[in-house]
Parts: sequence; structure tokens; C-alpha cells
Amino acid sequence: MNTSPSSPSFTATELAERFSLQVHGDGVTRVSGVATLSGAGPEQLSFLSNSRYRPQLAESRAGIVVLGAADAAAAPGTALIAKNPYVAFARISALFEAATSQAGGIHSSAVIDPSATIGANVSIGPFVGIGPGSEIGAGSVIGPGCVIGENCVVGEGCELIARVTLVARVRLGKRVRIHPGAVLGADGFGLAMEAGRWLKVPQLGGVSVGDDCEIGANTCIDRGALEDTILEEDVRLDNQVQIGHNVRIGAHTAIAGCTGIAGSARIGRYCLIGGAVGIVGHLEIADKVIITGMSMVSHSILEPGEYSSGIPATDNKTWRKTVARIRQLDKLARQFRAGD
Amino acid sequence: MNTSPSSPSFTATELAERFSLQVHGDGVTRVSGVATLSGAGPEQLSFLSNSRYRPQLAESRAGIVVLGAADAAAAPGTALIAKNPYVAFARISALFEAATSQAGGIHSSAVIDPSATIGANVSIGPFVGIGPGSEIGAGSVIGPGCVIGENCVVGEGCELIARVTLVARVRLGKRVRIHPGAVLGADGFGLAMEAGRWLKVPQLGGVSVGDDCEIGANTCIDRGALEDTILEEDVRLDNQVQIGHNVRIGAHTAIAGCTGIAGSARIGRYCLIGGAVGIVGHLEIADKVIITGMSMVSHSILEPGEYSSGIPATDNKTWRKTVARIRQLDKLARQFRAGD
Amino acid sequence: MNTSPSSPSFTATELAERFSLQVHGDGVTRVSGVATLSGAGPEQLSFLSNSRYRPQLAESRAGIVVLGAADAAAAPGTALIAKNPYVAFARISALFEAATSQAGGIHSSAVIDPSATIGANVSIGPFVGIGPGSEIGAGSVIGPGCVIGENCVVGEGCELIARVTLVARVRLGKRVRIHPGAVLGADGFGLAMEAGRWLKVPQLGGVSVGDDCEIGANTCIDRGALEDTILEEDVRLDNQVQIGHNVRIGAHTAIAGCTGIAGSARIGRYCLIGGAVGIVGHLEIADKVIITGMSMVSHSILEPGEYSSGIPATDNKTWRKTVARIRQLDKLARQFRAGD
Repeated sequence: MNTSPSSPSFTATELAERFSLQVHGDGVTRVSGVATLSGAGPEQLSFLSNSRYRPQLAESRAGIVVLGAADAAAAPGTALIAKNPYVAFARISALFEAATSQAGGIHSSAVIDPSATIGANVSIGPFVGIGPGSEIGAGSVIGPGCVIGENCVVGEGCELIARVTLVARVRLGKRVRIHPGAVLGADGFGLAMEAGRWLKVPQLGGVSVGDDCEIGANTCIDRGALEDTILEEDVRLDNQVQIGHNVRIGAHTAIAGCTGIAGSARIGRYCLIGGAVGIVGHLEIADKVIITGMSMVSHSILEPGEYSSGIPATDNKTWRKTVARIRQLDKLARQFRAGD
Repeated sequence: MNTSPSSPSFTATELAERFSLQVHGDGVTRVSGVATLSGAGPEQLSFLSNSRYRPQLAESRAGIVVLGAADAAAAPGTALIAKNPYVAFARISALFEAATSQAGGIHSSAVIDPSATIGANVSIGPFVGIGPGSEIGAGSVIGPGCVIGENCVVGEGCELIARVTLVARVRLGKRVRIHPGAVLGADGFGLAMEAGRWLKVPQLGGVSVGDDCEIGANTCIDRGALEDTILEEDVRLDNQVQIGHNVRIGAHTAIAGCTGIAGSARIGRYCLIGGAVGIVGHLEIADKVIITGMSMVSHSILEPGEYSSGIPATDNKTWRKTVARIRQLDKLARQFRAGD
Repeated sequence: MNTSPSSPSFTATELAERFSLQVHGDGVTRVSGVATLSGAGPEQLSFLSNSRYRPQLAESRAGIVVLGAADAAAAPGTALIAKNPYVAFARISALFEAATSQAGGIHSSAVIDPSATIGANVSIGPFVGIGPGSEIGAGSVIGPGCVIGENCVVGEGCELIARVTLVARVRLGKRVRIHPGAVLGADGFGLAMEAGRWLKVPQLGGVSVGDDCEIGANTCIDRGALEDTILEEDVRLDNQVQIGHNVRIGAHTAIAGCTGIAGSARIGRYCLIGGAVGIVGHLEIADKVIITGMSMVSHSILEPGEYSSGIPATDNKTWRKTVARIRQLDKLARQFRAGD
């Protein structure tokens, strides 16, 4: 439901040419926005990528629907046929995304250390602090209220939306996008007990973030104790993810919200990690591992595949009975063996 | 323990009249603050709402105790009898809450886009940024360090305590209260894999928050992909709650800290959701559902009632045995059936 | 890997004298930085504190290794012998920690209420707000973007790195260190239901934090309803920890990331609480309790020792079978008893 008088508009034929799709139906159908199958009107484009939503297709009033070849016949109006309808839809919907009216230039309130280096076409918002020895790459946008400490590097074309903190020794690659409240490069949680009191272990490493990573709101990535905490390229972290010091996350891995990864864990490439997963430190997860939400990962996972734990919620009475039985399980098993 | 020379003071009779309570004992007893049963002195008022604290009643030195009729005889001194003692106490204690000395007016350091609209009697603190097309309703308080992006609406009488971010297309109703570090309207976590790399799916929706909602510190509510993420009226979120894109939360639902709700889940009205609960996406929770803390909700819940999961902690040795037995459970069950 | 031209350097003998260690090998060996056993070069110092890393010792190129007496013979080069090698290493590595180039003085952009008190040698960064009646102790550093509300006290020698919020009535002891995004003193989550709507219960208490506490990034500590939420001295909280109102945490307790503690829980001294643990409200945990990561603590723990819950993740197929068996457990147990 995102159209406005100034929205651009496109015909099915124009979109097909632009994104190498096939038109099914009337190529002159014109749309000026995108919407869900059930919410779209005749001037909007929608998509069908999951067969469970096929019943909504027949009833959709969408002007154009992006879908796979197998579904084309079922489209009530104009369709655009794509190998991967969700990808095609993502590309099309980007045409309708309002450009952020980032003012450009450096706001007069920003406090930038004289030893910092600011690239060409950088936009720096109000109330931004940039510390000594830091560099901001060309074309990057540093939104309002960001704090960039000492010896940080922001690569070209990055976007720190607002109120992001890079504490110290944080190096971002190109096109990294960081959402508000994220904190990169805070001290890792390193403590030694001495004579009954905690002694802080200095955290001398940094954080290294590869190209095209995205980091969610209020997510934290601590800096390493001796070496760096590392995200390889194209890692995608949702909100409120916690990454301990010296963790390494392989390229193209995506991690959903509220997941915590303890220090020195090594996560492979192309992993999909669900929400609220807990991963203990000093273990290894292979490439292409899928971990479902709320799983507790306490050992290394050395083979690709899907891994899970946790017992789904049931009504409270059944759950209480189950917990009682689980507590008796050892006794029950012994009795059973004794009775054999 | 919150009295100060300038605190107001009230007699039992005055409070009874103001809040429609019944005095039991001496109506001229005067209090100038509130405290717990065990901590209160003769110039303070306390309350008893839970029978488990009844033993503390006899020993309390409180000048006045708010309680139910059944407990009145046990009060050692003056009592105020209420149908709901906790509600009556909440109303009385608000009399002793120090008004925040919000300076009023717009701080000279605030950066407000010329196209933004600021209502009457709005207070805007230092280091606040307000983006193009946004509106701040009459009587609202925008505390220090808040960032309000583009096309946001803050209703009348809202309070954004400090360092709150509304990224874009966030619409707050009236009297919404948001605590520091909360981020509303960040991009939802929408990704499509194309040729081995993640493609970002534009998040074109917004966030809509009803009247009288309260949103805790460092809580995140992502904006919708195509339609809005919605909180109906009087929803109460604790700290560090994560709400994915396109979630809808029904009116009067309360959610405790650290709970995560994945995208497109629909939560009913008058639900009570405990802390650190995980709710997967695209499911439905009926009205008046209670979910206990740390539950893993992976299926829709269509009937009101209390739901739970999780095994409470025990000593590590017992737990290790239990985990081993759970791993053998399938084998045990097969052996048992084979032995029938 | 943290050496730079301006790094200080030390010989083994100098370090031995400074930290009461014993030199094994060549006392003139000089190092100018610290690193891991496998990453260190001849100009760096490393350590061995855990026997599982002993195989790396023989291959290490480190100029100096700090280790226990039992491992001295195995050191390939110069060694420094320590009772507690990790503690000795922590102290040595602090010599190589770059001092933060905190400018000192009060930044011209800071907004400080005239009734606030600022001690000697305080450093206040840009975009800091300090509210009425608050005090900043001598030698404290208030980093960029911090918001300190009303009637807060920051003790001597504290460091608030950046973007920390102390909402109201927060009292910090000496040498407290708080990482970015942390929120102390927000309203506790106190609600009463009245006539179908939530009524907010005023939160009149504060937060009291003892000397030498450390509080992680984006961690929240709510203020108490009537009395204070309390951290005793030397408590260490990692990132994204959530502490509800009226919780009390005993001295020297350490809590890993993503753990949530509900209101009015009392945690003992010298506890070690793992990551993503959930602790329900109004219970008691004794001194010297260890709780492993992701445990669900729903009852008081009155004896020291190690406590756990949660089932570690397995492959998805096995997990599905296990969940099915757990659901049948009550039936299975009944059948077994009936068959006795």
C-alpha cells in the first residue's frame, strides 16, 4: 500500500525487459507500487513465491503478479514469469523505495577529530562524533547520533542509519549497512579471578566486517581479545544478535534476531541460524548448517544439514505432566531394564 | 523510601475520598510517601495485595496499609480498604511521583527539518533530530538524543524518554511512552538468495502503534515489508523485546523482557507473554493466551489458556543423566513396545 | 597482533620484576606486544593457561610465553612462570593497551543543568546531557552521546564509554565502567489491570551499582518500584543482559550475554551465570551458584553448585523423533506401570 502521487510507474513490458522476465497477459498493464496478494489493487504489483498462498492468487486484484511458470495459468490478470519470483519481486519493489532524503554534506554539529579522514561525497548527520585516526570511505552515510571512536575504518558506500556506535578498531568493508543502536567493537567479556576479585583482561583486538554485511538494530559485536572478531562478506545479522569476542562468521551466513554466539566460536559459510539460538564458545559450525530457532548448540556441528532442539509449548497442564515424567525418566529407564 | 522535605502529604481520609476507598482505623493518619510493608515507616503508606505477604502485615510499621476487606482486621494500624488493593496503591503512589522537570520548549541544539510539524506545548530536548515530513503532536515530550526520521507521526501526549529512534514511517497514537534505546521502524529482516549472494528485499511498510502503548528500553519493532507492523492500543512491551516485520499484536497484550516474535505472527488481545519467549513467524495466537517464560512457540495457539514449555534447571549431574535418557528415549520406547 | 611503532617494549626480566614472576630462559628477550600462541612472533608475548592448548606451545614463535611451572620445561623459548598465568597475562597485556585519547575537559556541546555538580578532572564528550541534581565524580569520563537524567550520581573514576543512558535516580560507585547503549534506571515493568486496561504502577525506586562493576553494551537495569535495584561491588554483566526492577545481585557475580533476570530475584555473591539464561522473579539464588547457558531457572537454588537445563541440539530428524517421544512420555510411563 505504498503509492504516492510522486511514485514512478511501470508497465509489465517495461519490467519484463528490465529484469529479464516473461510477460503473460497484457503487457501494457501499468503499476505504481507493490503490495501483498490480498492487499494489492489494480495499480499494484504483487508476487506468489510460496505455493501455500496460491488460493489467494485467484482472488487477488493485483494489476500484475510475479510468479513461477507453473502458476502462470492461474493468474487472474497480467503475470510476470520469473525463475525465482521472490528475487524478481525484491528487485522490482526496489524501484518503488523512496530514496532517503539524506541531506548530503557534513552537518555543522558533527565533531570530527582533525586526524580523521573523510572521503568524497560522504554524508554526516547531526550529533555525530568521529574519533582520531578514523576513516570514512567515499559515498558513505553516517546518520544522526552515530559515534565512531578511534582507529575505525568505514569502507565505501556504507550506511550507518542512526545512533550506531563503532567503539575502537572496527573496520567495515564496502556497502555495509548498520541499523540504529548497534554497537561494534565494545570490549569482549574477558575476566580473570584474582584473590576474590575480577581482573579485567584487556581486549586488544578489533572487529573486521566484510563487504555487503548488514547488521541489525541493537545488535552487538564485541572486539577480539588478541585477534579480531570477524564477519566475512555478505553476512546478515538481524536485530539484538550478540556476537562475542573472537567469533568468526563465514560469508553469506544469515542469523535471525536474539541469537547469541559466545566467544571464539567459528561459524561456517552459508549457514542459516534461527532466532534466539544460543551457541557456546570455542566450537565450530560447518558450512551450510541450518539451526532452527531457540536451539541450544553446545557441541561442534561438523556436517551440513538441519539441527534443532527445544520442546514446543503445549497447554500448561500437559507440560507440567511432561516435566514430571522427564524428571522420573532415569528411574523409569532403570525399572524397565530391571524388569527385562 | 521516597520521601523528601518537599513531598506532598495526605491523610487516610483524604486518600479514601480521592480514590473511593474505605477507612479502617484512624482517618487523620498522614503519610508523605510509599514503601514496601517491611520497609515502610509511620509516615509511609504500603499495600497488601497478595496473601503470601500477609505475615509481613502484622509487623509492618506503615502508617497506612491499602488492602482488601478480608485483611482489614489484621491491619496493625490505619487501613484503606480497596476492591483491588494493587490498583488503588498504584493510583496513590502516583501522587508521590516526582514530576520530571522537563524544561519545555525546543532546545536550541535540536535539528528539525523545515517540513516537520511541531504541535503546541511540545518539549524537545538537546541533540534531537526530526526528519522531513514528520509530525509531533501537542504536549509530547521528545527527550535528549532521540532521532525521528522521515514521515513519522508522534501523537498527542507521547513521551520518548531519551535516545529513542523512529527510523521511518512510524506512526504513534496518543500517550505512547517509549524508553531509551528503543528502535522502531528499522528495516525488517527480508532477504532473498540469488546466485549465492543475499539480495535485500525492500521494506516498504511502516509501524503503527496504538494509543497508550508502552515500549521498553532497547526494544525493537521492525517496519513491515509491504504493510505495517501493528501494535493495537494499550500494548505493553518490556525491555529488549524484538518484534519482526508485519507482526500484529492485539490490544492490551503485555510482553515481558527478552521475548522475540518473528515476522508476520499475529498475537491476540489480552495476552500475557512471559520473558524470553520465542514465537516463530506466520502463526496465530488467540486472545487471552498466557505463555510462560522461555516457552518456544512453534505452532498457532487457537484457544485461550496457559501454555508452556522448557525444562526447569536442576543440578548439573541430574541434568546430564536426564539428557542422556532423553537421547535414549526412542530406543527405550521401542524396546518397551517390543517387550509387550 | 597489536604492535605499532610507538608501542612500549619490555624484557622478560623487567616483566618478571614488575609482576613477581620467575624467568625461565633468556631474561633479555624483549617484547613489544601480546598475541595468541599460534599468532605470536618473536617480538610478542603469549600465554598458556589451559592444558588443551599445550600442543600449540611447542610450535609457537612467541618471544616469551607466560605459563605455569609444570609447563616451563616445554617452552621452546623464554618463559615467565606464574601461579596464575591468565592473571599474569592480563596484567602484562594491560601495558600494551593504547590509552584512549580522551580529550579531557568538558566539550562545548555538552548540556549540563546548572544544578549538576561536576568533579575535578572530569572528561565530558560531545552531545552529552546531564540533568538537574546529578553529580559526576572526580576523574570520571562521560563519553559522547551519554544522557544522564535527574538525581543521578556517578562515582569517582567511572567510565561511560558512549551513548549510555542513566534515566533517573541511578547511583554508581567508583570505577564503574559502562558500555555503549546500556540503559540504567528505566521504569520497571509494573502494571495493574483495571477495568480492562493497563494502569502503570509508578516506579519510585532507583538503581544502585557498587564499586568496580562493569555493564555491557545494550544491557538494561530497570529502577525499582519502591526500593532500589541493586548490584553489589564487582558485578560483571556482559552485553544485552536484562535486569528487572528490585533485583539484587551479590558482589563478584558475573553474568554472560543475553541473560534475563525478572523482577525481585535475589542473586548471590560469586555466582557465574551463563549466556541466555532466564531467571524468573521473586526467587533466590545462593552464593557460588554456577548456571550453565540457556538454563531456565524457575525455582530458588539454595545450595552452591552447578545447575543446568536444556537439551542440546541434534540433527533435525532425531530431534523430531525425540519431541514425539517426549509427548508420549506420560502414556508410556502409565503403560509401563500397568504392565508391572
